[in-house]
Amino acid sequence: MRTLKTRRALRAGLATLAITAATGTVIAVAAPAIDLTVRGGANRNDGDQTKDVSQSVIGGRARNVILLIGDGMGDSEITIARNYAEGAAGRFKGLDALPLTGQYTTYSLNKTTKKPDYDPDSAATGTAWATGFKSYDGAISVDVNGVPQKSLLEEAKAKGLRTGNVSTAELQDATPAVQAAHVSSRSCYGPIATLATCPEAALENGGLGSITEQLIDTRADVTLGGGAKTFDELATAGQYQGKTLKQQAFERGYQIVNDAAGLAGVKRANQNQPLLGLFASGNLPVRWVGPEALSDGGKKAPVRCTENPERPANQPTLVEMTNKAISLLDTKRNGPGFFLQVEGASIDKQDHAANACGQIGETVDLDEAVQAALAFAARDGNTSVFVTADHAHTSQIVEAGSVTPGYTVNLLTADDAPMTINYATAAKGSSMQHTGTQLRIAGYGPGAANIVGLTDQTDLNTTIRRILGLGTKRS
Amino acid sequence: MRTLKTRRALRAGLATLAITAATGTVIAVAAPAIDLTVRGGANRNDGDQTKDVSQSVIGGRARNVILLIGDGMGDSEITIARNYAEGAAGRFKGLDALPLTGQYTTYSLNKTTKKPDYDPDSAATGTAWATGFKSYDGAISVDVNGVPQKSLLEEAKAKGLRTGNVSTAELQDATPAVQAAHVSSRSCYGPIATLATCPEAALENGGLGSITEQLIDTRADVTLGGGAKTFDELATAGQYQGKTLKQQAFERGYQIVNDAAGLAGVKRANQNQPLLGLFASGNLPVRWVGPEALSDGGKKAPVRCTENPERPANQPTLVEMTNKAISLLDTKRNGPGFFLQVEGASIDKQDHAANACGQIGETVDLDEAVQAALAFAARDGNTSVFVTADHAHTSQIVEAGSVTPGYTVNLLTADDAPMTINYATAAKGSSMQHTGTQLRIAGYGPGAANIVGLTDQTDLNTTIRRILGLGTKRS
Repeated sequence: MRTLKTRRALRAGLATLAITAATGTVIAVAAPAIDLTVRGGANRNDGDQTKDVSQSVIGGRARNVILLIGDGMGDSEITIARNYAEGAAGRFKGLDALPLTGQYTTYSLNKTTKKPDYDPDSAATGTAWATGFKSYDGAISVDVNGVPQKSLLEEAKAKGLRTGNVSTAELQDATPAVQAAHVSSRSCYGPIATLATCPEAALENGGLGSITEQLIDTRADVTLGGGAKTFDELATAGQYQGKTLKQQAFERGYQIVNDAAGLAGVKRANQNQPLLGLFASGNLPVRWVGPEALSDGGKKAPVRCTENPERPANQPTLVEMTNKAISLLDTKRNGPGFFLQVEGASIDKQDHAANACGQIGETVDLDEAVQAALAFAARDGNTSVFVTADHAHTSQIVEAGSVTPGYTVNLLTADDAPMTINYATAAKGSSMQHTGTQLRIAGYGPGAANIVGLTDQTDLNTTIRRILGLGTKRS
Repeated sequence: MRTLKTRRALRAGLATLAITAATGTVIAVAAPAIDLTVRGGANRNDGDQTKDVSQSVIGGRARNVILLIGDGMGDSEITIARNYAEGAAGRFKGLDALPLTGQYTTYSLNKTTKKPDYDPDSAATGTAWATGFKSYDGAISVDVNGVPQKSLLEEAKAKGLRTGNVSTAELQDATPAVQAAHVSSRSCYGPIATLATCPEAALENGGLGSITEQLIDTRADVTLGGGAKTFDELATAGQYQGKTLKQQAFERGYQIVNDAAGLAGVKRANQNQPLLGLFASGNLPVRWVGPEALSDGGKKAPVRCTENPERPANQPTLVEMTNKAISLLDTKRNGPGFFLQVEGASIDKQDHAANACGQIGETVDLDEAVQAALAFAARDGNTSVFVTADHAHTSQIVEAGSVTPGYTVNLLTADDAPMTINYATAAKGSSMQHTGTQLRIAGYGPGAANIVGLTDQTDLNTTIRRILGLGTKRS
């Protein structure tokens, strides 16, 4: 971890995030005790970092790649979360610790015209890094002409690598789905929706099946997330017709766990006994809650976020799922390497809902997972880590206390200062929109220099394929 | 220019931006002719760029530093301009060509509480990189306690370097002012405002004078921009009392030019004959105009931007000013190096006004200046170039054809596709707000690796001081 220098480490250490176990507790935060009023007081570098950056630029391959996605986590979402949880001068110990950074473009293609769609969705953007193909909004690892294209996870598995897929969303949601399935529409979670909406994929029509059925077929060594309810659907065709998808998974050798204790008890996961963790009926409940954004929200007294009382105590956090996945996938150099995708899904979902505390808590949740990934990579010495988002989102930091034509909320940050956040891309009651700005990608380890400068989301596919030796030929 | 590889160069070259000389002409654009529907078709890298990045990480000092600021040019503003002018898969030949990139934080401090202000203005942010001090909104190179602090330009000059200050704004506007003046409020352009608002700076009170008077005192070798009207004010005290500030500049040896022809005719600029270019009464008129953002603007048919008929033909563009400044400052290794700041000011001003075409045209204008700076740096071999913004801004790319609680506009891009832009941080008729997200910084040349990863705006001061050997000790 070459860039975790004294000053940086100090900042990270000083930003104490004390979350008590009790539900409903106010999230207490304290900003770094640094004098920001003097020359260089706000500097983040300790000194000349040329050598550190130079040493972080490493060519060649890595045994393992961990890709962490903050869904909807644009630069604005990162800054909002940092300001709140660590203070403006603070630093996330994970998200902000990666030594190499760049910006990438996320546009999708219009299904009809094949021209750029400047405001993409999570299906098209996930397809972009999973397959290297720009596709249309709603596409799950099919190209813009609807042709299925192999995902990174599938290619890694075909090459003999171990694979993992972790999300705080339903496992059928776009980001986990793009690594495991190929359907024309992201809504084709189970057999019923698939027959209606993605007939090309229905088993009845000789297709690959619904997202859930394909996920079972894809058979990653470790698959952890939500979405249990679709696993209760019955197969409408094929060998397992009339049985639930969960029963099918069980009959096909999967170990199935439903809570943190069950996850902790798993000793191994492999192709004989792949692990399927289903920790919620739908998406996993988020960690933090707070005030609703309102037309006059910016004028209200600033408040702190609180823990989500609806979140079950036995639900694993993203870092727990990430650590478990890594420990199950890692063969400690005795066997093959692994490819693991980890998604913090509800940054996006809470931004859609104009819920500032929700999106901040999920960003903190992702940061913990990034810390775990970096800690493993530093120990292992042969692992590359990438952290980015699929697309940017609505939330904007505006002048404290101001109101806008949209909806604002006023939070009291780790600096004990007010921060006003604006949501203004959709009318109240509607879902706030994604936004189309280029966004941050960060990397660590062999091959990570390929994210420096301006790249496109599809370059990430090429970069990871190169690192894992999956071949980089363009179709 | 190590990163201008074949594929990148191809994209840049294919994105033809044909602007005819006639005023009112539609800006015709054509996107790259690249097949975006195939695997890797949208990739921006040609292959493994590890070696390119490695070779771009250069330590040590440089003779010259050119700092280009796009005022208000957050990642969203860059993406909007690229999509419009080059197409989503296109690439700015300047802005997108710098090999090293990072993100930096831009918060200012509250004048009273000294705590972070998460949504800064151009005065505090300019003060941050000019002096290394976080200060309050409105501060022109004074710290949060109001104490004047030396700027990069002043320190470079004191060390014997040649200096330049170029802007498309009034020269008294915050970004050019922070390099040349120290006043408690950014509004203290001339003697009258200063006596009323910045009494500590008034010559009558033994102060340093108004921004304009201090700019004359600072005596950069080259100062080019707008703001002629304040130079017509009379000095109210001091040696030049009763004379206009322009007359004062003239009597103190300045060469004064007022248009492109005058600028072209200047042969040299130095401490005996510093150059003062005053090309507009206020801010320089912008290059492009287009439709107003409206409550239902997103639903209107997409249109193209047009040239601004109000822009005088004899007004120099930013690249003309930049090239002239470089040629006048460059001693071709026979003398001292130089420090030059160049600002594209009206990206911000047009974003405040919710004028998408205005902000796009000014981003294209800045890109030309960046191209010129990079071309010089590549020829010279001993120049570092930095490109960034002071703070982010309002404009967001939303779903084409959508409307929001704010104001939208629908443009037809270089891809011949619709792009809808949302402005929703202030009510109609008010000025749209800055936003507080971290934003892109890019660098080229010795020392530029210090912008990789997450830094703060004040780190840029330290970085440039180190490169130019101005000393980096913290106060």
